[in-house]
Amino acid sequence: MKNLRIIFQPGAISVPVTAGTTIMEAMNQSGLGEDFPCGGRGKCGKCRVKVIEGLEDFTAIDKDRLTSQELDEGIRLACITKINRDMMVEIQSPKQLQHNILSHSADKQFHIHPHLSKVFSEIAQPSLSEHKSDWQRLKESLAGHGCSVQDLQAPLPLLRQLPERIRESDNRVTSVVYGSQLLGIEPGDTGLTMLGMAFDIGTTTIVGYLMDLNSGKELEVVSTLNPQAQYGGDVISRITFAGKEEKGLDALHKAVTEAMNRLIGEAADKVGAGRNQIYGVSVAANTTIHHLFLGINPRTIGMSPYVSAINQGLVVDPADLGLEINGAGRVFVLPNIAGFVGADTTAVLLATELEKSDHVTLVLDIGTNGEIVLGSKNRMVACSAAAGPAFEGAQITNGMRGADGAIDHISFGDGLEYTVIGNGRPIGICGSALLDGVAGFVELGMINKRGKFLEPEKLTDPRALKLMDRLVKYEGALAFQLVEAGQTRHGRPIMITQNDIRELQLAKGAIAAGVRILQEAMGIECNDIQEVLLAGAFGNYLNPHSACVIGLIPRELENRIKTIGNAAGNGAKIALLSAQEFSRAEDLAGAVSFVELGSYPGFNTIFAENTYFKLD
Amino acid sequence: MKNLRIIFQPGAISVPVTAGTTIMEAMNQSGLGEDFPCGGRGKCGKCRVKVIEGLEDFTAIDKDRLTSQELDEGIRLACITKINRDMMVEIQSPKQLQHNILSHSADKQFHIHPHLSKVFSEIAQPSLSEHKSDWQRLKESLAGHGCSVQDLQAPLPLLRQLPERIRESDNRVTSVVYGSQLLGIEPGDTGLTMLGMAFDIGTTTIVGYLMDLNSGKELEVVSTLNPQAQYGGDVISRITFAGKEEKGLDALHKAVTEAMNRLIGEAADKVGAGRNQIYGVSVAANTTIHHLFLGINPRTIGMSPYVSAINQGLVVDPADLGLEINGAGRVFVLPNIAGFVGADTTAVLLATELEKSDHVTLVLDIGTNGEIVLGSKNRMVACSAAAGPAFEGAQITNGMRGADGAIDHISFGDGLEYTVIGNGRPIGICGSALLDGVAGFVELGMINKRGKFLEPEKLTDPRALKLMDRLVKYEGALAFQLVEAGQTRHGRPIMITQNDIRELQLAKGAIAAGVRILQEAMGIECNDIQEVLLAGAFGNYLNPHSACVIGLIPRELENRIKTIGNAAGNGAKIALLSAQEFSRAEDLAGAVSFVELGSYPGFNTIFAENTYFKLD
Repeated sequence: MKNLRIIFQPGAISVPVTAGTTIMEAMNQSGLGEDFPCGGRGKCGKCRVKVIEGLEDFTAIDKDRLTSQELDEGIRLACITKINRDMMVEIQSPKQLQHNILSHSADKQFHIHPHLSKVFSEIAQPSLSEHKSDWQRLKESLAGHGCSVQDLQAPLPLLRQLPERIRESDNRVTSVVYGSQLLGIEPGDTGLTMLGMAFDIGTTTIVGYLMDLNSGKELEVVSTLNPQAQYGGDVISRITFAGKEEKGLDALHKAVTEAMNRLIGEAADKVGAGRNQIYGVSVAANTTIHHLFLGINPRTIGMSPYVSAINQGLVVDPADLGLEINGAGRVFVLPNIAGFVGADTTAVLLATELEKSDHVTLVLDIGTNGEIVLGSKNRMVACSAAAGPAFEGAQITNGMRGADGAIDHISFGDGLEYTVIGNGRPIGICGSALLDGVAGFVELGMINKRGKFLEPEKLTDPRALKLMDRLVKYEGALAFQLVEAGQTRHGRPIMITQNDIRELQLAKGAIAAGVRILQEAMGIECNDIQEVLLAGAFGNYLNPHSACVIGLIPRELENRIKTIGNAAGNGAKIALLSAQEFSRAEDLAGAVSFVELGSYPGFNTIFAENTYFKLD
Repeated sequence: MKNLRIIFQPGAISVPVTAGTTIMEAMNQSGLGEDFPCGGRGKCGKCRVKVIEGLEDFTAIDKDRLTSQELDEGIRLACITKINRDMMVEIQSPKQLQHNILSHSADKQFHIHPHLSKVFSEIAQPSLSEHKSDWQRLKESLAGHGCSVQDLQAPLPLLRQLPERIRESDNRVTSVVYGSQLLGIEPGDTGLTMLGMAFDIGTTTIVGYLMDLNSGKELEVVSTLNPQAQYGGDVISRITFAGKEEKGLDALHKAVTEAMNRLIGEAADKVGAGRNQIYGVSVAANTTIHHLFLGINPRTIGMSPYVSAINQGLVVDPADLGLEINGAGRVFVLPNIAGFVGADTTAVLLATELEKSDHVTLVLDIGTNGEIVLGSKNRMVACSAAAGPAFEGAQITNGMRGADGAIDHISFGDGLEYTVIGNGRPIGICGSALLDGVAGFVELGMINKRGKFLEPEKLTDPRALKLMDRLVKYEGALAFQLVEAGQTRHGRPIMITQNDIRELQLAKGAIAAGVRILQEAMGIECNDIQEVLLAGAFGNYLNPHSACVIGLIPRELENRIKTIGNAAGNGAKIALLSAQEFSRAEDLAGAVSFVELGSYPGFNTIFAENTYFKLD
């Protein structure tokens, strides 16, 4: 079957299809479908579309239902026209784009409820018998289109353009309305063109989702490394850079917004749209990145008592941020919860609907900082656990990020096995493999509860005995040689050292202590937790069994673990597509109680206990 | 009695006083007074002020009520301290400035109701046990101070400064709040400092009133010629310049805003304040000047059907206009009524309260364009009459503006007499004198109903006969020599020529036709008009009797004429001091029906009839 692409205009909604699909099937597939009187049997003639590219000869049914002028103009019936080549078609009826489509993201259904609305209207001609200004006539033309005309306001730069805009478009304009504000006026009817970008800005990676704001459809996904990394790999070093270097804040702010501008351009290009067609941007990020994105110095987040400048959700003019989208657009910045539990966690909660859940759920977003939320509709508590870089593969002897050449999983089943990203010879190991490796050492009795390798002669498990030879001396301690020098890409062995185990212990101890303390704060035991949701890249990649064996997640919960993909990205999409959901995010962020681990009584003891392993 | 000045700080409220006045009397005089327990008899010690400049020795009563440290710091009791030299004192109790003072302007009483409010608060220290952002703690500190904290929003540039502002002011800040928007944060308690400028921007002159927004007191009046005049003397030539010249609009916009900036600086200097203490600017102007001030091209006002871009009242960020006041301030632009009945007329109506009046009133603001409003609480109609430049002394043979050297009044009583502005030898005549002169010609039977000078031999009135010699030939017609060459400053005679009379006929005909047509629109006769209010400089300067004799105003109404000063300026002040009145202006502008004279049936006939004179 040949893979083809059909692009629906306006909106540049691109849909991959196989040859022979009808245009109507493609519309249904993309959320642009509509119920037509005849049910798509070529009888009612209501499903007209105009073929702009890829036009073929009309059929007898087309000829029956359409005039010869329509046929000449490329009008066809969507229900009977098959797609045999790449096509671009223009949707004729505005009804074919409906605002109230259910979208589906991370198991959550929600109604699309655009922040901005576009209203096409025809403005009355001015006359001597009435003394109505351009603004007055524009407002009157908008009445009855669902905007509150009475209180409508427009920014001065737009008012300056008003007389020219109205006259050059022959009194037929599309108004871009946000609440009681008129943000833009465009010539003609542009109602079908409303794109947006949802951003999940991580410390390391920026992911952007190009969305159709009318249909809720995801059109493209683009991503890039966060160029702020050049000024510091983690949030603390960026806070320092922003606070100490002259223009440091500005450099960090520009680094992220310029990267976003590139992603916006790239995504728009891919679907044949312009950045001017983008009217909304939503942003989920941790609190430090959130502040840097907004150009707010995050200095106070970096020192006790770790307060942010602002947590509240914000609606910002893209011009204030240097974001290059339509000037009538708006930027929707999700609210933070606290200095180290940011808008990314709010986005995760938005996607998971923890606050509506009857049963107690543990949500883990594990990274250099692990954000942990525990709760249900009755109560939610959150904390941030400073796991350090071990899960990212950093400060590990042969550690690396989860990129080509990384060993990503290890199993000790019938003999040692591992998988390599990209399938070539390995270069190093990433966090998920370190987890598997250490979990294996625990299960095979190769380390003690303090994480120390046992001397080879003390091993008892037959599987461990088979691996005895791999225990080698490294920098005065034992290490486990995972791959010998001859098998690696660089000709050096790949090992898991005593030090690597220590690093992992600190990391998992921090997360586990956070979970433990949240349980205490809620007054519940492990068994009361009915579901564990793992969000984020690492959470989706790790082996849940390994996580439980090393005690990153309580063992009792192994069968209750579920991965939920890039929940922060999904939350950003939801916030972009629904004004109601964006406003719900504010309630959500406010409903979560933050527990500051460092000042929690007995934290050091709980942390130390959790760095240990439980041996069977 | 020596004239002295006392300045109250903060707020730089300057009060002229005579020597020997007590500080408390000056406070009462300026609206800063307060009721003290002892009634100002030096008993309660509550009326402390701190003398910053002009300190004299304390009295025995001071010594009784104040500590020696207070006396050293310059603290004195306001009730017993007499002003014997220029002084500056600082008011100690915020209660001494109250918001609800009645202000008095153009016979209108209204309550001061500031657009912006200043709230001093002490922000809680951040703590580890709470995860409250700076913004959250600031909002909580504002709760209970009458601002709606729930919906409070702040612009991004302010949020960027928030952490620094809070910390550098030791958590004690004054918030500048406008509706649900936080516009500024200032260190310490600055609540007493709230100045504003009300502007009446005329085609020729700009007048600015520096007002204390707390007390409603007028502190200074400053004025300048409108520098837009370099691009055209009247609104039509400025519309042409804005439309045709490249950057013409920008030049006209900058000319007016830069002049306003100079006036703001001048007025602030005069009271020892800074432009940064100015938080509000209100603007009344005709529709063309209104548009040019806002940077909106007034092109469509200049051609049929003469529509404006916007009439609605506006609240604008001063930065968008280049106005140099406190960045947390706002600019309040009064609404227009139509293309040629502008916000200046709305301001006049705001000051006169026509819409609350039981009896029918005629409001005239006479200039190059005469704005005429007729009505009562039941109905109001307005028109704009193109009087041309005669009233301004332009296009008159020896005409000039009402400046030094202008003959401003002429009487034909016991012989010809005239007065000259500045009292020196005359240079020319201004509009009010032209009115008097032609009125005299009518009363003495020296011109016929068509305005033509009678040949000297046809004069009959004894007073006219005495003036016979003054009738001279000028450019082929008769002219009246008002001042002979030897008596003028430039050695040339000053005359009223046949052509000058024609110019006046066109001007008064236009206004009178406008009045007539508004009467027709209302279905009323002259006698139904119970009051005539003359606004504006010319209206205040002209001799009402002369105006009635020449038929500028119907003769029946002579005894009902009242001048109301610069009512547009008063309206601008009212709009600046009261948010309620500013919002009432919107209703007011919307309630006035505009009559376009040019397209009124029979206009040409009515106009022609009204260019004639009525002879007894």
